[in-house]
Amino acid sequence: MDQNALKEQTGKESVKYIKSGMIVGLGTGSTVKYMVDELGKQVQEGKIKDIIGVTTSSRTAKQATDLGITIKDIDDVDHIDLTIDGADEISDDFQGIKGGGGALLWEKIVANASNKVMWIVDESKLVHKLGAFPLPVEVIPFGAQHVFNRLEKKGYKPTWRMDGDQKYRTDENNYIIDLHLGEINDPKALADELIHMVGVVETGLFLNRVNDVIVGTQNGPKVLHAR
Amino acid sequence: MDQNALKEQTGKESVKYIKSGMIVGLGTGSTVKYMVDELGKQVQEGKIKDIIGVTTSSRTAKQATDLGITIKDIDDVDHIDLTIDGADEISDDFQGIKGGGGALLWEKIVANASNKVMWIVDESKLVHKLGAFPLPVEVIPFGAQHVFNRLEKKGYKPTWRMDGDQKYRTDENNYIIDLHLGEINDPKALADELIHMVGVVETGLFLNRVNDVIVGTQNGPKVLHAR
Repeated sequence: MDQNALKEQTGKESVKYIKSGMIVGLGTGSTVKYMVDELGKQVQEGKIKDIIGVTTSSRTAKQATDLGITIKDIDDVDHIDLTIDGADEISDDFQGIKGGGGALLWEKIVANASNKVMWIVDESKLVHKLGAFPLPVEVIPFGAQHVFNRLEKKGYKPTWRMDGDQKYRTDENNYIIDLHLGEINDPKALADELIHMVGVVETGLFLNRVNDVIVGTQNGPKVLHAR
Repeated sequence: MDQNALKEQTGKESVKYIKSGMIVGLGTGSTVKYMVDELGKQVQEGKIKDIIGVTTSSRTAKQATDLGITIKDIDDVDHIDLTIDGADEISDDFQGIKGGGGALLWEKIVANASNKVMWIVDESKLVHKLGAFPLPVEVIPFGAQHVFNRLEKKGYKPTWRMDGDQKYRTDENNYIIDLHLGEINDPKALADELIHMVGVVETGLFLNRVNDVIVGTQNGPKVLHAR
């Protein structure tokens, strides 16, 4: 199976965990896209009833709406039962980097409002230590160059996330700076340092946030229980 | 002297610290308005030359531009020599609450890029402990109700900052939640707790950020050196 087939397998598998009546957080990304497609199919076929989706990006909102999934704004629900989302890297101890697709802020807000969080990934996303994948940092546009310069001075090898020749804008109209760290030895200390930098809104470090991971492997989907 | 006269006295006094050639951070608020007026006057009269202003709100930007002060975007300067701003409360140990005017985020970003920070206040702003003034917390609109609910559960007595019958929007299009705490015993611990809440962009706690304070008193302006 190629990577796309692994993603499709994983995305479809995860829908088994969505039960009728649930409020479900819908992530963003290529694996999640397969999950939302399958969910839409099962909703249309009446196999899953009365679910409400809460989306983590304008892209997923459009996809889900087109498929006939009922969507509510996060502030119109008081909780989320289960959020299914992708991840860009997951370490041995189930810490994650997210935000390769640029939706880290809404993804983190939705995860934070969720009773359970499930990540769905192909096996290439499992790593020993985080950091080979560039760490996204969402920053306020006003004064963003000063944040960039500080990150550069710290040796964090920042680059601007681009969209053609313009700086990429998130759903909240912020910028993303990607840090090319290679290896992150202490994710908690790094997250703490970054979130205290004035102008930083959120980082792509998702620490102690996932409950279960479904990994797409050549031998079929494998479920890992984190916490 | 009434409070406005004290503000005017203080605002005017602070302009003495602006020297020709400086890059100056221009705060926001009623006392700062007097400072900017006086600065504009001295620039027009040629008493202060070649200064560049960096503003902390769209309001101050408009005022300064109208007065003929050269304004640059914060990302077009590599440092700021001196920022003069107001404050809503200053404690005995020179910690501050800012954001009554809603500009806390840009104010903090500008303060952070400044070599020196001066606050100008009338004497009613000096308090023993912070907290009688409501503490502003700037939050991302997406999921803001969940942040509000968490703050309420913690007993922080949150209220939405309003603009007529709509939620107030900051220059970055975020919301402000005001916390009615009465007394803040450990500002550092509180700032730390709040900044780690997903969805919180910044708080109005300005800790270890001011160098000098000019206080307007009935006996004239008094300068306090903080650090």
